[in-house]
Amino acid sequence: RYCTRMARTGGGPLFRQLFESESSTYTYLLADAETKEAVVIDPVLETIDRDLKLIRELGLDLKVAVNTHCHADHITSTGLMKKRLVGLRSAISKFSGATADIQLSEGDTIPFGKHHLTVRETPGHTDGCMTLVLEDQSMAFTGDTLLIRGCGRTDFQQGRPERLYESVHQKIFTLPDQCLVYPAHDYLGQTVSTVGEERKFNPRLTKNLEEFVNIMNNLNLRHPAKIDIAVPANLLLLRSTLLTGDR
Amino acid sequence: RYCTRMARTGGGPLFRQLFESESSTYTYLLADAETKEAVVIDPVLETIDRDLKLIRELGLDLKVAVNTHCHADHITSTGLMKKRLVGLRSAISKFSGATADIQLSEGDTIPFGKHHLTVRETPGHTDGCMTLVLEDQSMAFTGDTLLIRGCGRTDFQQGRPERLYESVHQKIFTLPDQCLVYPAHDYLGQTVSTVGEERKFNPRLTKNLEEFVNIMNNLNLRHPAKIDIAVPANLLLLRSTLLTGDR
Ligand SMILES: [Fe+2]
Ligand SMILES: [Fe+2]
Repeated sequence: RYCTRMARTGGGPLFRQLFESESSTYTYLLADAETKEAVVIDPVLETIDRDLKLIRELGLDLKVAVNTHCHADHITSTGLMKKRLVGLRSAISKFSGATADIQLSEGDTIPFGKHHLTVRETPGHTDGCMTLVLEDQSMAFTGDTLLIRGCGRTDFQQGRPERLYESVHQKIFTLPDQCLVYPAHDYLGQTVSTVGEERKFNPRLTKNLEEFVNIMNNLNLRHPAKIDIAVPANLLLLRSTLLTGDR
Repeated sequence: RYCTRMARTGGGPLFRQLFESESSTYTYLLADAETKEAVVIDPVLETIDRDLKLIRELGLDLKVAVNTHCHADHITSTGLMKKRLVGLRSAISKFSGATADIQLSEGDTIPFGKHHLTVRETPGHTDGCMTLVLEDQSMAFTGDTLLIRGCGRTDFQQGRPERLYESVHQKIFTLPDQCLVYPAHDYLGQTVSTVGEERKFNPRLTKNLEEFVNIMNNLNLRHPAKIDIAVPANLLLLRSTLLTGDR
């Protein structure tokens, strides 16, 4: 019913979750343990040296750098990585408005060795948001669509709460209960959740559509410190401290 | 050779890694998926509400709160947890100098359902440091003894570099290569490593004993921002920024 991480006994890819603390962003590295072909999800400029060092130490052959969406809070390192790793290709949704070597849409796959990620379009936070699902549906990389006990904001750029609600319910909550949920951000030190847990405990997505839209349209007033915006963590902390002082 | 985390297909415990950003501390939650009996490793006062909420949501029966060691940087929430969860018992090394319901020493086990953790004494950072190893040796919780590409400081309290070196080489590097290494802290956004990787790439522990002792005895001058001390992350960041400015 729930989940764990285990030593690779067979079958599963090599997997690493990496955190960037200024923007509270998670970067994910997946690789075929035999062929060493690898994919990186949402790499961040600030941690490019750390990530390239790890890729080199593990002897990986990084094929694709994929961004779950295009946003100001993701100052991605994909362009710089491409300059430093010959043969690396960038990938993003064709609805993102951004350029990349690979333009992805629903059902497309990103292969790495015997494994692959499958694209599920999950617009709402932006038009080009995607969720990437491992071939055995044991892991979903949900970007800013579904966060742990939360979701990405929908009140700027192409954000539309109705679309996000539909995306989560049709494309993510239809995955198996035990599927691990790995988001693009977390602000509370949580590293992973599961589809079953979010379906049961997500304080926003468990509401009906009308209530959800209402929550999302009043988010700035209610959760200013938890939203997905392009400010450093210390500013978020400052705002949070000030607000706590006001309570 | 390397590692991954996977959906629990059978056998493995429920597992969660949780982060506290002020002290850069990891707390770990392990549970038997059937009986729900659970153990928490290195809980932190600042995140006790988050952790108790998760334990409640997952329907866990928390039996033991164990601290890998007793130090100023670990302002643990064990005492407060015991007040809030009837039947919870605390555990720590009998060489820690601290009181707890269970005093642990080499080879002792902490059972939770059909799983258990085994104690390996790994002194050096403090006299009472322990590494906790899952029954199948797929995971090791190394406390401040072995960090990812680093180790705990040995220059204050009961710190002794020779003992730490011996502990790592005799008690941790003798585990299987693919055994996952989960430390008590990480300051660079790294979440996990493996015994094989640390044996190969740890910049300190790959040195011989003499070089290691020399590194550790000159640590304050060389790595002031990365050491295991009881200051908030923003102070560490400040020191790091000032030093970068000096280079
Ligand atoms: Fe975003
Ligand atoms: Fe410590």
